[in-house]
Amino acid sequence: MSNQTVPPSSAENVPSTAPPATPASDTDADVESKTGYIQPVVDVAALTEFLDGRYAEVRDLVRANLAEHAAVLEDAETMDVDDFRERVKEIVVGMAATGQTGMGFPEEYGGGGDIGASVAAFETLAYGDLSVLVKVGVQFGLFGGAILQLGGKHHHDAYLADLITGKLMGCFAMTESGHGSNVQALGTVATYDAASEEFVITTPREDARKDYIGNAARHARVAVVFAQLELDGSSEGVHAFVVPIRDEDGNPLPGVRIEDDGLKMGLNGVDNGRIWFDRVRVPRDALLNRFADVAADGTYSSAIQSPGRRFFTMLGTLIQGRVCVGGAGINAAKVALAIAVHYALRRRQFEATGTGQEELLLDYGLHQRRLLPLLARTYALHFAQEVVAGQLHDVTMGIVTDEHTKRELESRAAGTKALGTWHATETIQECREACGGAGYLAVNRFAALKADTDVFTTFEGDNHVLLQLVAKGLLTDYASEFEDMDQLGMVRFVTGLAVETVIEKTAVHKLLERIKDVLPGGDQWDQDAGLLDPNYQLAMLRFREEHMLAGAARRLKRGIDDKLNPGEVFSRVQDHVIAAARAHVDRLVLEAFVEKTREMPDGDNKVALNLLCDLYALSTIEADRAWFLEHGRLSVARSKAISREIGSLCRKIRPLAGDLVDAFGVPPQMLRSPDLLG
Amino acid sequence: MSNQTVPPSSAENVPSTAPPATPASDTDADVESKTGYIQPVVDVAALTEFLDGRYAEVRDLVRANLAEHAAVLEDAETMDVDDFRERVKEIVVGMAATGQTGMGFPEEYGGGGDIGASVAAFETLAYGDLSVLVKVGVQFGLFGGAILQLGGKHHHDAYLADLITGKLMGCFAMTESGHGSNVQALGTVATYDAASEEFVITTPREDARKDYIGNAARHARVAVVFAQLELDGSSEGVHAFVVPIRDEDGNPLPGVRIEDDGLKMGLNGVDNGRIWFDRVRVPRDALLNRFADVAADGTYSSAIQSPGRRFFTMLGTLIQGRVCVGGAGINAAKVALAIAVHYALRRRQFEATGTGQEELLLDYGLHQRRLLPLLARTYALHFAQEVVAGQLHDVTMGIVTDEHTKRELESRAAGTKALGTWHATETIQECREACGGAGYLAVNRFAALKADTDVFTTFEGDNHVLLQLVAKGLLTDYASEFEDMDQLGMVRFVTGLAVETVIEKTAVHKLLERIKDVLPGGDQWDQDAGLLDPNYQLAMLRFREEHMLAGAARRLKRGIDDKLNPGEVFSRVQDHVIAAARAHVDRLVLEAFVEKTREMPDGDNKVALNLLCDLYALSTIEADRAWFLEHGRLSVARSKAISREIGSLCRKIRPLAGDLVDAFGVPPQMLRSPDLLG
Repeated sequence: MSNQTVPPSSAENVPSTAPPATPASDTDADVESKTGYIQPVVDVAALTEFLDGRYAEVRDLVRANLAEHAAVLEDAETMDVDDFRERVKEIVVGMAATGQTGMGFPEEYGGGGDIGASVAAFETLAYGDLSVLVKVGVQFGLFGGAILQLGGKHHHDAYLADLITGKLMGCFAMTESGHGSNVQALGTVATYDAASEEFVITTPREDARKDYIGNAARHARVAVVFAQLELDGSSEGVHAFVVPIRDEDGNPLPGVRIEDDGLKMGLNGVDNGRIWFDRVRVPRDALLNRFADVAADGTYSSAIQSPGRRFFTMLGTLIQGRVCVGGAGINAAKVALAIAVHYALRRRQFEATGTGQEELLLDYGLHQRRLLPLLARTYALHFAQEVVAGQLHDVTMGIVTDEHTKRELESRAAGTKALGTWHATETIQECREACGGAGYLAVNRFAALKADTDVFTTFEGDNHVLLQLVAKGLLTDYASEFEDMDQLGMVRFVTGLAVETVIEKTAVHKLLERIKDVLPGGDQWDQDAGLLDPNYQLAMLRFREEHMLAGAARRLKRGIDDKLNPGEVFSRVQDHVIAAARAHVDRLVLEAFVEKTREMPDGDNKVALNLLCDLYALSTIEADRAWFLEHGRLSVARSKAISREIGSLCRKIRPLAGDLVDAFGVPPQMLRSPDLLG
Repeated sequence: MSNQTVPPSSAENVPSTAPPATPASDTDADVESKTGYIQPVVDVAALTEFLDGRYAEVRDLVRANLAEHAAVLEDAETMDVDDFRERVKEIVVGMAATGQTGMGFPEEYGGGGDIGASVAAFETLAYGDLSVLVKVGVQFGLFGGAILQLGGKHHHDAYLADLITGKLMGCFAMTESGHGSNVQALGTVATYDAASEEFVITTPREDARKDYIGNAARHARVAVVFAQLELDGSSEGVHAFVVPIRDEDGNPLPGVRIEDDGLKMGLNGVDNGRIWFDRVRVPRDALLNRFADVAADGTYSSAIQSPGRRFFTMLGTLIQGRVCVGGAGINAAKVALAIAVHYALRRRQFEATGTGQEELLLDYGLHQRRLLPLLARTYALHFAQEVVAGQLHDVTMGIVTDEHTKRELESRAAGTKALGTWHATETIQECREACGGAGYLAVNRFAALKADTDVFTTFEGDNHVLLQLVAKGLLTDYASEFEDMDQLGMVRFVTGLAVETVIEKTAVHKLLERIKDVLPGGDQWDQDAGLLDPNYQLAMLRFREEHMLAGAARRLKRGIDDKLNPGEVFSRVQDHVIAAARAHVDRLVLEAFVEKTREMPDGDNKVALNLLCDLYALSTIEADRAWFLEHGRLSVARSKAISREIGSLCRKIRPLAGDLVDAFGVPPQMLRSPDLLG
C-alpha cells in the first residue's frame, strides 16, 4: 500500500520534498519563528489509511485494478473512437467480475449489499481513465440504480443479476434535448392502452428526443425511459419504464431510432446517443412500479398521493449518482495536484539568490499561493464527501429513516457535488498552468483530466440548479409540508404561489433570530478571537450563511409583497440565493474538516491536517472578505492579518506538500507524466 | 459584410434578441425606470465597422478565407493526427498565396509591408481552427519574424521570399525542456571554430534539448536556434543561428535528432517536437547578425555594449508574437460568447411566471451575471488590443523611435497578452457551462476552443512571468539606466544587487507622491462621484495601481534594508508584485475603452458601448472591492451600490446582447453548433 502512494523514483529525484524548514524572520512580522513552531513530519502511510477510512480495502482493490489496466490511459489517446469504446466496455465488464462495480446491489443478486462501499469504489476509479468511470456510473449507478430503486421484485429478478455482471447493458434515458435539469417538464409520453395492456412510448416533438444518453449509441440493449404517464388523456407525471431498444445483434428495435452524439470534448470511451420512440409498445409490467402502478384496467394507484411528492420521492432515490460524481471530481483534483506539486518540487526556474542554482517552483510565494489553498480545499472536500457518502449509506440501507435526514442528504449531496466538481475544474486548470507548456502534452495527464471532468459541472444536475435546490431546502428549513414540491424547480418554487406562505411561515424572522445566535461570544467576539481558532472560523462561515439566507428571504418576500412579476423578482434575487447556498455548503465542508481533525489522535499528522484546515478556513474567508468587510465582521486590520496568516500557513505546508499529495494514494501508473515527474 | 455578422437564421429563430425593454420598478431601488432611460437599438454593421477599425478590409479577407475553409473545423475531429497536420499545412500554404500571412514582411520580398495589417489578419484567424492560427504564427511570426528582425540583408535575401510563400518551412527553436520563460539561461551552445569559420551547435545535456517547437516534428527544413555563443571559451550570451535540420526529403540531417512531442491537449494540427544537436556545424554567416557579429578570426562585435541590453534588444524585436497571441485569445473568447449568448436567447428552461411558457436563459439574473460582464470585458480587451497593436505597428515600422515608448510597448504587450489569454480561458469555460451538456459535444465548438486555447496562458511567456515583467517596468519607471537588465529576469532583478539602487533612485517616494495626485477632487472626492462617471472609474483603478506599486516597492526595499535573503524577500512579496502589475493593466484596458467610446459619434451604438464600458469598469472594481474597502476608497454603502448598478447594467444590456456579439463578425460557419443555434 505505501509503495503505491509514492510516485516513481521520488526517493531519488525529489530530495526536496521535505527540506528543512526555513522560517527566518519576516518582513511581514510573521509569527512562525517566534512561537516555537516545530515542523511536523507526515507519516504518509498512516495518513492514507486515515483518508481511506472505513473502505480502505475496497479502495485498495480498485487501486490494484486501475494499476493493472493502466494502459487504458494511453489507449484513450491512440485508439479511434469505436475501438476505444469497445476497450472501455471490456474493462468495465472485466471489473464487474471482480465485484467492485456491484457493491451497492443486494447480495441475493450477486451484489455486495453495501452502498458506502460502492461509493468508495466509484470515487477511487476517478484516479484512472474517466471514460471507464463514467461507463461504470451509467451501467451500474444510473441504469442499475433505477432498476433497483424504482422497480419491484419482478424487475429485480428480471434484470439485476445480468446487469451486475455486465451481461445486460442498459442506459438511463432521462435527459431530453429540450430539458436537462428541469426533469418534470420532459416531453416523452407513455400512454396506457388498456385493450392490449401495454404502454405506448412516443417522442412527440423533436426536442423531446432523449439526448446525451450514455451507453445509448452502441451498447445498451434496454433503456430506463422517463416519460409522462398518460391514462385516459390525463397525465400522472413522470414515471420510468423499462424499454428494450436493441435486439441481440445490436440493431435498434422497431420504432426505436438511435443516433450517435458524436465526438465529445472528453469521455470518448462512453457511447452517448439520442433516442426517438415512435409508438413503441411495452407490456404493463415495464412500468417500474415501486412507487406507483397501473392496474390492467388502467386504474392508477400510488401510496403517495401528491403527484409532486411522488415525483420527488422517485428522483430522491437516484441521489447516489450525484454523490458519486462529486467524489469523482474531488479525486480527479487529487491526481492533478499530485502531478503539479511534485513537478514544483523538481523544477527549478530563475536564479533568485546568487547561489548559482535556480529556485524550485514551490519555493516561490506565488506558486505556493496558487497550489496550496487548492490542496487544503481538496482535503476539506474529501472529508465533506466522506460525510455525505456515509449519510447516503445510512439512508439507502435503511439505517436512518426519518424524512428530515433524507431532505438534508439531498441538499448535502447537491451542494457537495456542485462545489466538488467546480473545484475539479479550477484545480486541474491551475495545475496545468503551473506545469507550463509541459502540462499541455497529453502524456502528462492534464489533457484527459481537463476534457473528461469538464462535463461534471453540468451533469447529474447543473451546478447552479443544484445550488438552488440547496437554497430551497434552507429557505423552507426542510419543512415537511413542502416536501412535495418540485425538487429541481427552485425557480417555480420561489416564484409560484407557494412562496408567500413558505417565506411567511418558516423563514424570515426565524432566520433573523438565528443570526444573533451565531457568534458564541457576542457581537464583538469575532473581532478578538484567534484567527486559528476553529470556533472563530466556523462562526464566520455560519454568520455569513445565516445572514445571506435571511437577506435572500427578505428580498423575495418584499418582491412578492409588492406584487411584482415573480419571474422578475426571482431573476434579481437569484445570485443572492445561489450565494447563500454556496455559503451553506462552505460551512458544511469546514465543519466536516474540523470534526475530522478533532477526532484524530495527537501527532504530526494531526498537526499537518490542522494546518490544512486552517488554510482552507482562512482562504475561504479571504475569498469573500469583501462580504465580511461589508457586513461588519472583519476590520481592515483583521482582513489583512488573515491574508498574512495564509502566507504563513503556505510556508509551513510547503515542506509537507509532497507527502500530503502522496497520502492520496494515487497509483503512480495513473500519474504518467514522464517529463514532469522524471 | 453585414450578412456575415449575423448567425444562421437568427432572424427566424431568435426573435428575442431584441425584446422590448422591461424596466419595471425594482425591489433594489434601481434607477433605470426613473431616469427616462431609452433602450438603444444597435446598428450591427456600423458597430462591426467600428470594431474592425483601420484594417476592416484585411479582416474581411481573412473572414472570407475562413468561411471557405470551414471544413477544417470538422477535419480536426475526424482526421488522424498525421493527416490533420498535412491538412493544416496545406491550408496555411494556401493562405500564404492570398497574401494574408505575409502582410508584415517587406514588399521587396513579396510581403505587404504593414505590421498592423499582419496583426489584424492573425487576430481574425482566431475565429477559425486554431491549429491553422498557430501554424501561421510559427511559420510567419516566429520563424519569419526572427529572420526578419534578427537577420541582416544576407539572411533576408536567402530566406524571406521562400518563407513568405510557405515554400521554405521553418521553426523557432528557443524553448528547452529545462528552460521556458527564463530564456537567458538556455543550455544549447554555439562554439565558434575559427579554423573552419563555422559555429558548432551542441545540446550539452538532456534538459537543454529544444522542446515544444512548432513545425519541428514534421515540416521544418530549417530552424532558428537560440544558443549561448561561446568564443574562445567565454560566453557572449544567447544568440540566434539559422540551422538546417532536414534534407529535401524531410529526413533529419546528420547530428540532428528530432522527436515528436506527441499528442497534445489541443492544436494537434501543429507538429511540435524536440530537437537535439550533436556538434552540428553551420557556416559563420548562419549567425543572425543584425545586433552582433563574429568576424572570421572570431572577434566579437556589437553596437550594443552591454550583454544584457543586447539580449534584451534582440528579444524585444520578437514582441509581435506576444501581441498576436493576446489578440487571438480575445477573439477566441468572442466565438464562445457568440454561441453562448445566442443559445441563451433561444433556450428556455423552467417556468417562472405561470404563463405556461418557460423562461429564456438570458432572462435569469444569474445568467446575465455570468455572461454579460465577460462580454463587456471582451469589448474592453478588444480596444486595449487595438492600442497595443497600433503601438507595435508604429514602433516596428519606425514611425516612433524613442526608447521609452519601446519599453512601454513591451510592458503593454506582456500585460495585454496575460489578461487576454486568461480571459479566453475563463470565458470559454463559463460559456461552455452556460450551454449545459450540449456544450460538451465537439460539434458545438467549445471542445476545440477550450483545448486549443489552453496553452495560450503559458506560451510566448508564462502569464505570471509576463506580469512580473510589467511590474519591473513600473518599479523602475522604465528608467533608461536599467534598460539593459534581463528582461525576463524579474526575480533576479528584484533580488539582485541592483534592487536597492533602483528602488532608492526611482521608485518609493516618487510612487508615494503619485498616489496623492490620483484623485482629481481630493481625498474625499471618490466618495461622492457618480458611479458611472468614467473619471471616477479611472481614478479608482489608478489609485489601486499606484498604491499597490508603492506598497510592493516598500516591502522589497524593507526586505533588502533588513539584509534578508533576497530570494525569500521576493518570494513573499511576489503576489503583491503580480497584483500591482495586474492592476496596472486593468487601468490601461479601461483607459483604452473610455477613450474609444469618447471618440465615437453620438448615437445608439455609443450608448450601448457606454453601457459595456460602465459594466467593465464597475465589475472590475467589484471583483477587487475588498481591496478598495481595505484601503478606504469604498464605503460599505457604495460598495453595495456598485453591485446593484452592475445588476442594472446587465438588465439594460440584456436586450442588446445578441447584437453585441453579432458585431464581432464571427463568420457563421465558424460557430457551427447546430444544436445550440438551431
